[in-house]
Amino acid sequence: MEPTQTPTPHATTVALSGHLMDTGVLARVLDDVLEYGGDYRIESLDLGRQHEDESRALVRVSAADAELLDRIVMRLQTHGANAVDPGTATLRPAPADGVFPDDFYSTTNLDTSVRLDREWLPVDRAEMDCGLVVSEEGGRPVVRTVPVSDVRAGERVVCGSHGVRVELPPAVARGDEEAFGFMSSVASSEKPQVVLVRQIAERMREVKAAGQKVLWVGGPAVVHTGAAPAMVRLVEAGYVDVLFAGNALATHDIESALFGTSLGVDLAKGSGVPHGHEHHIRAINTIRRAGSIAGAVSSGVLTGGVMHAMVQAGKPFVLVGSVRDDGPLPDVHTDVLDGQRAMRAQLPGVGFCIMVATMLHAIATGNILPASVPLVCVDINPATVTKLADRGSAQAIGIVTDIGLFLEQLARELT
Amino acid sequence: MEPTQTPTPHATTVALSGHLMDTGVLARVLDDVLEYGGDYRIESLDLGRQHEDESRALVRVSAADAELLDRIVMRLQTHGANAVDPGTATLRPAPADGVFPDDFYSTTNLDTSVRLDREWLPVDRAEMDCGLVVSEEGGRPVVRTVPVSDVRAGERVVCGSHGVRVELPPAVARGDEEAFGFMSSVASSEKPQVVLVRQIAERMREVKAAGQKVLWVGGPAVVHTGAAPAMVRLVEAGYVDVLFAGNALATHDIESALFGTSLGVDLAKGSGVPHGHEHHIRAINTIRRAGSIAGAVSSGVLTGGVMHAMVQAGKPFVLVGSVRDDGPLPDVHTDVLDGQRAMRAQLPGVGFCIMVATMLHAIATGNILPASVPLVCVDINPATVTKLADRGSAQAIGIVTDIGLFLEQLARELT
Amino acid sequence: MEPTQTPTPHATTVALSGHLMDTGVLARVLDDVLEYGGDYRIESLDLGRQHEDESRALVRVSAADAELLDRIVMRLQTHGANAVDPGTATLRPAPADGVFPDDFYSTTNLDTSVRLDREWLPVDRAEMDCGLVVSEEGGRPVVRTVPVSDVRAGERVVCGSHGVRVELPPAVARGDEEAFGFMSSVASSEKPQVVLVRQIAERMREVKAAGQKVLWVGGPAVVHTGAAPAMVRLVEAGYVDVLFAGNALATHDIESALFGTSLGVDLAKGSGVPHGHEHHIRAINTIRRAGSIAGAVSSGVLTGGVMHAMVQAGKPFVLVGSVRDDGPLPDVHTDVLDGQRAMRAQLPGVGFCIMVATMLHAIATGNILPASVPLVCVDINPATVTKLADRGSAQAIGIVTDIGLFLEQLARELT
Amino acid sequence: MEPTQTPTPHATTVALSGHLMDTGVLARVLDDVLEYGGDYRIESLDLGRQHEDESRALVRVSAADAELLDRIVMRLQTHGANAVDPGTATLRPAPADGVFPDDFYSTTNLDTSVRLDREWLPVDRAEMDCGLVVSEEGGRPVVRTVPVSDVRAGERVVCGSHGVRVELPPAVARGDEEAFGFMSSVASSEKPQVVLVRQIAERMREVKAAGQKVLWVGGPAVVHTGAAPAMVRLVEAGYVDVLFAGNALATHDIESALFGTSLGVDLAKGSGVPHGHEHHIRAINTIRRAGSIAGAVSSGVLTGGVMHAMVQAGKPFVLVGSVRDDGPLPDVHTDVLDGQRAMRAQLPGVGFCIMVATMLHAIATGNILPASVPLVCVDINPATVTKLADRGSAQAIGIVTDIGLFLEQLARELT
Repeated sequence: MEPTQTPTPHATTVALSGHLMDTGVLARVLDDVLEYGGDYRIESLDLGRQHEDESRALVRVSAADAELLDRIVMRLQTHGANAVDPGTATLRPAPADGVFPDDFYSTTNLDTSVRLDREWLPVDRAEMDCGLVVSEEGGRPVVRTVPVSDVRAGERVVCGSHGVRVELPPAVARGDEEAFGFMSSVASSEKPQVVLVRQIAERMREVKAAGQKVLWVGGPAVVHTGAAPAMVRLVEAGYVDVLFAGNALATHDIESALFGTSLGVDLAKGSGVPHGHEHHIRAINTIRRAGSIAGAVSSGVLTGGVMHAMVQAGKPFVLVGSVRDDGPLPDVHTDVLDGQRAMRAQLPGVGFCIMVATMLHAIATGNILPASVPLVCVDINPATVTKLADRGSAQAIGIVTDIGLFLEQLARELT
Repeated sequence: MEPTQTPTPHATTVALSGHLMDTGVLARVLDDVLEYGGDYRIESLDLGRQHEDESRALVRVSAADAELLDRIVMRLQTHGANAVDPGTATLRPAPADGVFPDDFYSTTNLDTSVRLDREWLPVDRAEMDCGLVVSEEGGRPVVRTVPVSDVRAGERVVCGSHGVRVELPPAVARGDEEAFGFMSSVASSEKPQVVLVRQIAERMREVKAAGQKVLWVGGPAVVHTGAAPAMVRLVEAGYVDVLFAGNALATHDIESALFGTSLGVDLAKGSGVPHGHEHHIRAINTIRRAGSIAGAVSSGVLTGGVMHAMVQAGKPFVLVGSVRDDGPLPDVHTDVLDGQRAMRAQLPGVGFCIMVATMLHAIATGNILPASVPLVCVDINPATVTKLADRGSAQAIGIVTDIGLFLEQLARELT
Repeated sequence: MEPTQTPTPHATTVALSGHLMDTGVLARVLDDVLEYGGDYRIESLDLGRQHEDESRALVRVSAADAELLDRIVMRLQTHGANAVDPGTATLRPAPADGVFPDDFYSTTNLDTSVRLDREWLPVDRAEMDCGLVVSEEGGRPVVRTVPVSDVRAGERVVCGSHGVRVELPPAVARGDEEAFGFMSSVASSEKPQVVLVRQIAERMREVKAAGQKVLWVGGPAVVHTGAAPAMVRLVEAGYVDVLFAGNALATHDIESALFGTSLGVDLAKGSGVPHGHEHHIRAINTIRRAGSIAGAVSSGVLTGGVMHAMVQAGKPFVLVGSVRDDGPLPDVHTDVLDGQRAMRAQLPGVGFCIMVATMLHAIATGNILPASVPLVCVDINPATVTKLADRGSAQAIGIVTDIGLFLEQLARELT
Repeated sequence: MEPTQTPTPHATTVALSGHLMDTGVLARVLDDVLEYGGDYRIESLDLGRQHEDESRALVRVSAADAELLDRIVMRLQTHGANAVDPGTATLRPAPADGVFPDDFYSTTNLDTSVRLDREWLPVDRAEMDCGLVVSEEGGRPVVRTVPVSDVRAGERVVCGSHGVRVELPPAVARGDEEAFGFMSSVASSEKPQVVLVRQIAERMREVKAAGQKVLWVGGPAVVHTGAAPAMVRLVEAGYVDVLFAGNALATHDIESALFGTSLGVDLAKGSGVPHGHEHHIRAINTIRRAGSIAGAVSSGVLTGGVMHAMVQAGKPFVLVGSVRDDGPLPDVHTDVLDGQRAMRAQLPGVGFCIMVATMLHAIATGNILPASVPLVCVDINPATVTKLADRGSAQAIGIVTDIGLFLEQLARELT
């Protein structure tokens, strides 16, 4: 009789380095292996002996079949783990417009390189949940990060995990709390808020001094909480280089500029903001007539508010629509894929991102932002911050606070 | 010397009837007059003496200028108040594509009629924040509700409040708590939930018996809370006639059908659902390859879940994209205006609407739904319900509860 | 044969006056009658014709039996409604220590008078859910508000609703929004917060100028959010006349004063506050050794923080324990009834009450505070404010905001 | 000239074993050392190579002075780390009643032993934030866990960290997810709730089969959500061995039993529960007259509800008062220290604890519960669960769901 044979499982070894203990990254890697149905064995763990030393681990990962193993290894790359023997990349043609090959390599938001033959080629930019497309430019291969909707039939797409390497941002690898003072903070309203505001102001000054851009992502509560004047001061002082928002922030801002003082009840007086009345749709109609927000500014129709300040300062904004929008304003991208493309086009040069009072646009920006851009998310609702981190923006620092007082305090620090 | 003359303010009288006291509608009307900077005098108030009688009030509204008076009267129509002397409608041509005349009549979500000459013409459908466009069909004038983005240059648009009349839904006018058992309820988690579920089941049965459609609006938590099997049973039993959702619900549902059982950690086992991993983008890619969700069902790629059940039952769904979407699925409307049009096309015949675990799509649906359609909003987050009511969906009944247990209980009652 | 007789229901007429429409009070009265199982008929309604006029309503209330009618009339008194024919009070002896007669009159938090014979006697103080005890002082009858736990066997207690009259605070009767600028506001984070802070500061200055006391009720988040220094400045500037809190606020404040600078991680640096470590129990032990907080101040053990500032300013505080307390501090009332008595003793002279970041002590104070004392409740959690209003503190104005930034801003306005 | 001498820092080595990686415990230990201002060096780390193996680490901890070192070592014991060379315990007399020596050993909620001379003595019970008192019983030393308020002057108290050893519960040390299926879960409403309910039911059956007690801790929302009938069925089926609650749960339960059916609006009908009315105080007065809840049951005054069921089943309950209580019921401990003592007296034999809809009593119970008792906390508010875990109840498993539907579902599983 023949003995029953246990099939040799497929296996590979991945390496991690950095502050594996403090940051909990090793625990997360091991968790994920088990969660995906694989198994692991720690081959070696070279711990920094002092707390400022880096550690290095080699973990043998095994799985029942090659496809699952591939999926696990790709998953571990989101934590900065790379295969010890990466091999070279497999390329397959996209089967149709807007469709990747089945086993396409799904990107992380980390800096990435691809090895086609011998050399490691840097990928053009980091964005999660995309594919990697290899093409020729000037006789040399280049690797681009492409969302599934933008791939064209026949383009060569990296498949499987072979030949792909990622790199954690230095601060994350170090578990660098000092880089930001509260780098590892989770959402909490129980923090000395005044200190946090000061640290953010400090960081914004540094980013500007380094010639980088500050990206703001905002929701309509910026207007409802009476923080628009503070935000205008920040725009005028040069601390808002790009603004991502939806129809609502711009509409309520413009509505407030157009109707805010003509009504008995207004923001200056502090009474309730009536929701659902029709002023917002009149405001939208007025701007549609002017052709655009900039048109309304230059024709003297729009003379105040955040959007006016952005136009006056010559700073770009990207407004992307949603299914709940009325109107919308003529500047709004009603096609969300167009909107995402417009947002991506503004990312180069961004050195800091701050999100205030928006879950939808915060997550949308988190989806396309490289992990190397520091990210602060401010909301009175703790769920916004939690969701952001859950979806892969591990670098997100959450601050649960009141937007109105927060922006007032920040404007005071910076202007 | 001549004495300084106080200019006679512009004024008109509006009438309200129904359960003015119990429903608080009179208080809201008076509040709004003051909030808009007008003033009022109650000319008469004929109270029902018994608590089941209707009341009728005449309120004289005055304002500093005719334009403000017009805006106030339009505002009061959202509460069902009409001018005693409505006059006939003023029509003006739209100045450009997608632009209304400045003083266009902004619609409510109540049943509306317009008087052009003598006769009152019914408006085709009720939707808030739109304009009214008058055209000829077969030699007779018809009045259509048109969103600002859909108006064409030169179309004749109702301007000002003259010649427009609205009508409260009978149940709302009656303050009819008995119609639904908790009609006036505000958001609260402190309610006997088992009773509420039974009442909703009862109402769904009645709506189906009357040959009307049940509209569902859902978010991805339907899948995350493990409620998809319960939802499938409801689809199969015929209680889901139309489904409005985003890319997320459909994607997570399909991801769960495609990958749910191949992983060690899954919904059936009750361990954590890993967010942010790449299975959702693989699931999307698979469906893109099949061309559509229905295509994936017919080719045998997709064999379970809520979307599969909808396709099998031959029931329509409208998926509308948002800026945070990955992919998206091929069935998703990426242009939000197209998406809104597709949603509007499904509204005729809807007799009941239930929203579960989604703020974005709940508000989007609330925007286009007539006030005459009963509406239940179920969410673990009280803010969703509050926002919905704030934005004009006064008929919304909120239930703060757990989606997973709620749908399980509802499926038990109905299947 | 005799016809079936419908028993004549028991009925009485109550009168309301004030801004019945704007304030919604009439609607609430009618609602409550139905909710308690009674019925009503509006006998007359004399509406103010201008919006600043008062209205007056007479409502006939009927019920199946005298006991229910009595309960309904008592309930309506919480809205300021009084019987047109009040009669004289019925007195019965308390059957035992700590027990009222079954049909005792349960108090509201409104100013109340009792008629024993002919004359209306003012009740000593307003507190809800107590009984009224009549005794003799210097040969004259006096009426005291007594909690059930404090009544003694044989004391004469007012029973039923006869002979009791209540009075709405003038501002509430007027629906007086101007008195405070946002009197009718419900909980919302979407308000111009900077304006609200200014209005509260203004009101505090007026109260101090009128020689009245400002009562603070606080939770430990005052310390956790880094607001203790701002609070100390408010104490030193004289804007904190009395402080109600629990063991936690005082303990964390003292812990921070004793250990705050000796640890690498502290409030000044902005890193996470470690919960659950043992410093709080060491801080408590240190104060227990000193005998009291004042003792620790005078012996030089405690040299900073909010409690230190209160002791230095000679201002009283009442700390009441709860079942979750460790220790507690020697100043804490471990018996909650003793604690309530100590709180009541501080109420005379209070002209304004502000509650920050505490649900337990906010509700406890709301229970004993007369409706005539303006009350602002500040919390990042909207539920706290909602609960307070639900429980009968109708005068509560809620502000949903961040405590740290709020107190910083308030201290800036006032110091 | 003499060189400046760096003083040799005080240092000791601690050992940890168990699933150090998966559970993140090593990371927390290292974090805490730095947070307290100490430093560390990992002397050795023997990793389990397979994921089911245990690991063992030796960490050298250093600090600037002996007192800080002692505080750090005590802190690390909350994670199950013990000094390699524990020495013997230092005992000092308590300086006064209710006061520990300054450097008293502050307990964890882990099983603990003390070495006085040679032998390790087991401590009588585990409770955090207490002291250890050594006395003689029958000529042999015994070590008791004593809260600070209960220590008497002169009693011998363990000081510093020497001679104390703790032990992680086996399941925690193993990182044993299988023990409970979702052991490591954090608060989330996005879970398959039906599965979770089934797992809890399963666990309750096992605990009962093992002859252990199930402890319930509940808040008034049990009644408000209409879950009292489900709870009654659980009591009758024997799954509620002990109940900890406050005045509110018992009062609203009794109020509902006494008045629930006599009012037009009631729980069975599903309309709003009126808060703040006076029925609760009448209910309290009725029970006060009867002398106790059991008295009201035996005299036939109280015939339904949860408290009635507990009395009928002969199961104990501990009601502890709070400063917001009206009344209270005669069974309520108004002194919170007495209440804590009564709660402690019920803990022996408890094998499982479930907390529903109460933050105050959940934290109070968490404070006194050994870490070895599995603990599930069910609340619609995620903050309750987060607070519980923050305060040291690391074994707490949180379920964010609706209490009404949860208890209905649980009763269905178990009865």
